[in-house]
Amino acid sequence: MFATKKSLENFLKVYKKEIHRQISKTTSVTNSDSMVPRLDQAANKSPQNDETGPKRLLKLQKYHRFLSTLTPQEMPMATRGLAVTKDQSREFMAVFPDIVRDLTETGKHIDVPEASKWLAKLLQYNVPNGKKNRGLATVLAYKMLEKQENLTPDNVHLANIMGWCVEMFHTHQLLLNDMMEGSEMRRGAPCWHRRPDVGLDGINDAALIQSAMYTILKRHFNVKPYYKNVLETFNEMLMKSSMGHYVQKLMFKTDKPDLSLFTMDKYEAVTKYKTSYYTFQMPISLAMLMSGIDDPEMHRQAKNILLEMGEFFQIQNDFLDCFGDPAVTGKPGTDIQDGKCTWLAVVALQRATPTQRRTMEDNYGVNNPEAVARIKDLYEELQLPHTYSVFEEATYDLLRTQIQQVTRGLPHDLFFKILDNIFRRSI
Amino acid sequence: MFATKKSLENFLKVYKKEIHRQISKTTSVTNSDSMVPRLDQAANKSPQNDETGPKRLLKLQKYHRFLSTLTPQEMPMATRGLAVTKDQSREFMAVFPDIVRDLTETGKHIDVPEASKWLAKLLQYNVPNGKKNRGLATVLAYKMLEKQENLTPDNVHLANIMGWCVEMFHTHQLLLNDMMEGSEMRRGAPCWHRRPDVGLDGINDAALIQSAMYTILKRHFNVKPYYKNVLETFNEMLMKSSMGHYVQKLMFKTDKPDLSLFTMDKYEAVTKYKTSYYTFQMPISLAMLMSGIDDPEMHRQAKNILLEMGEFFQIQNDFLDCFGDPAVTGKPGTDIQDGKCTWLAVVALQRATPTQRRTMEDNYGVNNPEAVARIKDLYEELQLPHTYSVFEEATYDLLRTQIQQVTRGLPHDLFFKILDNIFRRSI
Repeated sequence: MFATKKSLENFLKVYKKEIHRQISKTTSVTNSDSMVPRLDQAANKSPQNDETGPKRLLKLQKYHRFLSTLTPQEMPMATRGLAVTKDQSREFMAVFPDIVRDLTETGKHIDVPEASKWLAKLLQYNVPNGKKNRGLATVLAYKMLEKQENLTPDNVHLANIMGWCVEMFHTHQLLLNDMMEGSEMRRGAPCWHRRPDVGLDGINDAALIQSAMYTILKRHFNVKPYYKNVLETFNEMLMKSSMGHYVQKLMFKTDKPDLSLFTMDKYEAVTKYKTSYYTFQMPISLAMLMSGIDDPEMHRQAKNILLEMGEFFQIQNDFLDCFGDPAVTGKPGTDIQDGKCTWLAVVALQRATPTQRRTMEDNYGVNNPEAVARIKDLYEELQLPHTYSVFEEATYDLLRTQIQQVTRGLPHDLFFKILDNIFRRSI
Repeated sequence: MFATKKSLENFLKVYKKEIHRQISKTTSVTNSDSMVPRLDQAANKSPQNDETGPKRLLKLQKYHRFLSTLTPQEMPMATRGLAVTKDQSREFMAVFPDIVRDLTETGKHIDVPEASKWLAKLLQYNVPNGKKNRGLATVLAYKMLEKQENLTPDNVHLANIMGWCVEMFHTHQLLLNDMMEGSEMRRGAPCWHRRPDVGLDGINDAALIQSAMYTILKRHFNVKPYYKNVLETFNEMLMKSSMGHYVQKLMFKTDKPDLSLFTMDKYEAVTKYKTSYYTFQMPISLAMLMSGIDDPEMHRQAKNILLEMGEFFQIQNDFLDCFGDPAVTGKPGTDIQDGKCTWLAVVALQRATPTQRRTMEDNYGVNNPEAVARIKDLYEELQLPHTYSVFEEATYDLLRTQIQQVTRGLPHDLFFKILDNIFRRSI
């Protein structure tokens, strides 16, 4: 179908642009969408409690048969663990105590025993209690990429250790973010820096976790041919996510978000740098290195697909934060009152009339239920749930095509498995 | 003189213990010190302005001919640049713009140009404005260690780049410390996090500098045989200094320092982990790796000497913070009111009578000029300036012996040069 790789890439680029154009070009419903009833009537109602949460969700579902992420029994990746077997999950968890022991065993840093004790506490509180998607994805990918004869218990153990290093990287990021954003809760418990014995010293604790990650990498991978590449991958991810954080922060020069900076380009850049690189590209990249793949072209192909998935993952997250059922997503969304640069806000601003834009300016980022309700109404007025469902379908098809066109021997199944986990339906 | 390396080490250990024992065993003046007048009379005077600063200094000098660090024209390492030639200093500075260009040149991170621009600003404000001791020491050591025929312009340029990586590591530490301690000023300018456009986001900026350091290391040393060891050195230093910070912080469980934790063991551990490793060991270690030395025994010998020097450097710093002339040291000391665990406080507590201990408990860490004066008087009552001068002499001799006994081909001159810089007198 595609004579050269280049022509495929060009096609995909054009196709993706077209989706974005379709989304942003107009405030009215396109022809092909005309079977979907307008939601304006519902939106004109004054916001009431019974219009939010599950009831609102059911109503939306009625209109949008494509909205797979709205089906209550099917939780999106953001709220679930990666679909790995219970055995895999158990295998992964079983390795964590080894990590802690490696780092704190007697004899190491013998002149500062209290620091070793603290490190153990710090790791146990912060590292293993999340969804562990990134760590599990590393192991999953390794098992799919490695030749059968090399899948020895030792190598599988190493993959699990690598998975924990990815989780430690993630924890370092979370600790820093929680402090910078002044967050209260994380994973159902108070944020680490909220503990009375931590506070701003959590900055040092984040550095401790980061150095613990390097210590584990050295201990277990020091003699491996891929060690250098692995270290560089971690270091590069640190650069990417720090740059992403900076650009995101720029949108909040004052207390209020600067809506003039809410463009699709900026949204995509932040998403890519702050999330996609280390959440999607990093685990697979590391697994590829471990299984001996260091061909830059293969890494580039994988990266392209994974960054696309990362972007979609973030858009889905944004959508669910506003329109998802808290009983399913596990948390009530706060993006609107926080004034976050979400996909919904960007698309809304693209489509808004001057009056609607004023509504955004007056209410977005204002911590007040009425302001939030007004924004949600505006989103429905602008048909964003419908737009999202169209976008979801189109992205899904685009990613399938992209995966099928991977030429350099990467198993398509690996990507489909990740894709399946995002879209949460059988392929 | 010493049949085996082991016996030398044992001797040095015993000798060092003896110095410490001499210092701590008694509150009265030892026989050999009897020629030094007691300072009690002076200490009984009520503290007045004319008793602090230069006048106090002159009085102390009169009594203590050994106090080399008190001679106003001779500034200790803490307040001077490393004694390198002006040419060397200029050569080093000339490389900095290359570093910034490498990190921010067009084409790199093209989708987040604002982040690259910020990175340039961040580096320029924070990296090159200090004394650059650590970076200059790296270059100095490399030039002394490398074979003459390998001292090509390219290799010297690389050593300068390595020096800047050490400076970036140091800057990362400074930014984090300044935030955790809520500092106001650094190097005569407001701390980075005090800027209105920074604040807590300085946490992310510190991570950016750290990742910039890794990027530079990759770009210039990626193909070098010592690259892996260099990366591991940086990573290990991160672990050490984070642990040091933790142990230091432990002494401040509440708002007041916990004097029961002010022991010599703890003081030595904090100094070693928080400062000596990355300020003294790291630059020389990196220079050794660059010049092809990777024999662990040579690294171990260098490390032993350098950590001893680091400890002395800190003790000297502590002494000057209290008894140095602000006109010479460049800053008025605040260790007493800050309640820092200094060498002076530790020795004072070792020697204090129950009454004197109560004076410490009531006044140490209290931000009030009278309380500070009371502690200074107590220090003089306990003859700490004299003790310090004896300690300085003994440590100097000990380090000379240690350097002369280095057997594995490390140039003694390198260590003497560093030692000379601390003691500031001709050897």
